[in-house]
Amino acid sequence: MSAGNISSEWIQKQFKVLERIGNLGMKREDGFLRASWSAEETRAMTHIKIIAQAAGLVGDWDAVGNLFITTPGNQEREVMTGSHLDTVPGGGNYDGAAGVVCGLAAIIALKDKWPSLKKRLALVVWRGEESACFTAVCKGSQAAFGLNDPNILQRKFKGITLEEAIRGQGFDPAPIAEKRATLDSARVDAIAALVELHIEQAKMLEMHKKPIGLVTSIRGTIRIRVEVTGEANHSGGTPMGITYRKDANLAMAYMQVGMDTLGKEALAQGKDLVQTVGVINTSSDFNETHPMVAENAITKVSPYGYFMLDIRSDDEVFLAEHAAKVEALIEKTGKDFNVEVSMGRLMDLKPVECLDEKIVSIEKSVCAKNGIDYELMPSGAIHDAVVVANRRHSDGSPVPVGMIFIPCLAGISHNPAEFASEEDLARGAEVLMETLYGLASK
Amino acid sequence: MSAGNISSEWIQKQFKVLERIGNLGMKREDGFLRASWSAEETRAMTHIKIIAQAAGLVGDWDAVGNLFITTPGNQEREVMTGSHLDTVPGGGNYDGAAGVVCGLAAIIALKDKWPSLKKRLALVVWRGEESACFTAVCKGSQAAFGLNDPNILQRKFKGITLEEAIRGQGFDPAPIAEKRATLDSARVDAIAALVELHIEQAKMLEMHKKPIGLVTSIRGTIRIRVEVTGEANHSGGTPMGITYRKDANLAMAYMQVGMDTLGKEALAQGKDLVQTVGVINTSSDFNETHPMVAENAITKVSPYGYFMLDIRSDDEVFLAEHAAKVEALIEKTGKDFNVEVSMGRLMDLKPVECLDEKIVSIEKSVCAKNGIDYELMPSGAIHDAVVVANRRHSDGSPVPVGMIFIPCLAGISHNPAEFASEEDLARGAEVLMETLYGLASK
Repeated sequence: MSAGNISSEWIQKQFKVLERIGNLGMKREDGFLRASWSAEETRAMTHIKIIAQAAGLVGDWDAVGNLFITTPGNQEREVMTGSHLDTVPGGGNYDGAAGVVCGLAAIIALKDKWPSLKKRLALVVWRGEESACFTAVCKGSQAAFGLNDPNILQRKFKGITLEEAIRGQGFDPAPIAEKRATLDSARVDAIAALVELHIEQAKMLEMHKKPIGLVTSIRGTIRIRVEVTGEANHSGGTPMGITYRKDANLAMAYMQVGMDTLGKEALAQGKDLVQTVGVINTSSDFNETHPMVAENAITKVSPYGYFMLDIRSDDEVFLAEHAAKVEALIEKTGKDFNVEVSMGRLMDLKPVECLDEKIVSIEKSVCAKNGIDYELMPSGAIHDAVVVANRRHSDGSPVPVGMIFIPCLAGISHNPAEFASEEDLARGAEVLMETLYGLASK
Repeated sequence: MSAGNISSEWIQKQFKVLERIGNLGMKREDGFLRASWSAEETRAMTHIKIIAQAAGLVGDWDAVGNLFITTPGNQEREVMTGSHLDTVPGGGNYDGAAGVVCGLAAIIALKDKWPSLKKRLALVVWRGEESACFTAVCKGSQAAFGLNDPNILQRKFKGITLEEAIRGQGFDPAPIAEKRATLDSARVDAIAALVELHIEQAKMLEMHKKPIGLVTSIRGTIRIRVEVTGEANHSGGTPMGITYRKDANLAMAYMQVGMDTLGKEALAQGKDLVQTVGVINTSSDFNETHPMVAENAITKVSPYGYFMLDIRSDDEVFLAEHAAKVEALIEKTGKDFNVEVSMGRLMDLKPVECLDEKIVSIEKSVCAKNGIDYELMPSGAIHDAVVVANRRHSDGSPVPVGMIFIPCLAGISHNPAEFASEEDLARGAEVLMETLYGLASK
């Protein structure tokens, strides 16, 4: 017997509403932009706030604009679920939103049980999870714990700073500026557990025909920006080779191929690694302050270029060693091509080696009880859950965190084609509901 | 005994004036932008028109805004010199300008001889030679002969079309739209010879300690734009390798390294070749009509990118073969990486295998008579002289063309550091003057 009844129809209705917020065209397939602290993000969060309150939940925004909603009641502690509603530019409607909608569906399905639960149920909608906006990740959840680098307030997206964006939505950037948590330690102590549902953003579940992923670890991430300065010379009159040329573009190509070779070697040794150069010269906000990128021309040996590199692994020691190897390779390639190299780390986030074992074991028995096949797997992506998993209660105990993955079509995410099926969403909400119930009823 | 006296002081004075037109800062070292058909180009040309007329020359703009000035007199034919005054963005003050200023200095130095010459002397200042603006090269000289692709009128630079730029300077784009020459065939027949002085834009002369280069051939150019379409996927959740990823950026890196390998092989076989990827994702005007480049993000496997490739050789057959090889390599690399490749040729200009032998022989004897060491060399860059060298008189004879190179510091050009010394400019003007005299006096 189930603890409650998930309404798949209700879930689909909420996605239909969200499809009209930040859609870049008329259809879901046109993609979305609900940027961090944009009017679109606020509108999507406000919709969730209204339907949660209509369902009897209570709560409000924190100082920076995260949304915390709980079941009414006098329980001391709470079991939390939730995710985010912002998207990357040209993103989909399920990354983040799946966790928010299924989380609220799970809480509402347990309505009859609320008074009898040992712990409250809580829904969180974090602000600004996506790093594509303002080049900083998990900004809202980090703000809740006072973890952001205050300098991110001056980073820009579409010409405005994060500080301006936060103020623009009626919230206060001061906690970020002062590294002051919006949740006090009593509030953090009250979080007995957090379980986030998310689309997988890869195609392992689909390929292995498993409808549910139970996340056991989350990959750490090191991000590096590499700037290469060469020398502008006439492309027709300047002989090839480093005696005559300092070619930024050519050096960058050799850096990428060299890194790819290092990556393949690591994979062949059985290491966990994903490595991506997502940006070459295409960050409009970075270009605004680095106009020399516009001095490149078809008639010139390229004087300047940059790329941004993302390296992830669930193995902390390997990740650090591999990143150091990549940096050494970039330096050496720069010397080989007689160009200047400047590197900076944009992010250095350690892996979460194992999510809470008790939560994973509850999730497992929920799946077993319901005859749902599952895969134990690492998360490649960063999620707000990682931020929470690295926090401790005032007694020194870690905040227990779990994650449930549902499949997304062909593994595609951060893309207008991102899609999670009605069936997979309902099944995910079901597993989440039972897990929340298991955690809150004791 | 010299035919006239070149005033080095006068030459320097003109460069000082030009240094204040289109300078991107306060000093010559800040670089220049005198874009094709910009107010700055017009201002620079107008300065030349005024001082030429003050020196007794006559003439005017053609329909599209090229400037044709000649010595007064009834001679039927003319010996022409000149170059262009536009620059690439962030370019120098000598590319083009050296030929205009030294050309006018040479003509003025021969003033006493004007009435007795068998042929008039003429100065031409071509519009819009640089392809960095509106991605089309030698636009003014091609317009004089009705050779431009009319489609270039819709290409943009800094947000305005070439058509708008031409109208904005008070000239008429119709001859380009209609492929109608601004010079009629009688006018072309009147050109007995053309000699263009230019900075070398490479460092062969400097390395070989030769103060003058006599150009014997001009490299042909093939330009290719390569667009690569992959698939946006989450950088953290999507495993490496082509089973999971369609990575535009990585494919482009392998294309570049592959092309570089092909290039090195050709050089090792003694072929004449320069090959450059000057632009990766950095053409602001192309980006305006291809906004998917902005969908790249640090958290995404890159869905889209492009680069622009410039290949040059003085060997027509090899150039065609090598470009075909490069295109095949790009296609194959695209297949290897499971990405879509779209290629288009932006330019296909044949080499000029040998400039006029009679002119080269006059140049040689001028150097010998004056004890000036010279180097016989190909031109790597495209110049307006190439356009003229490919023209024929109505009797079928080619228009005789010659080019004189002077050194530029460290071979640097298309760069704010571009510099030609006072001595080299004066020496170049001297050789040019004697050559013009040799050609016009018979």
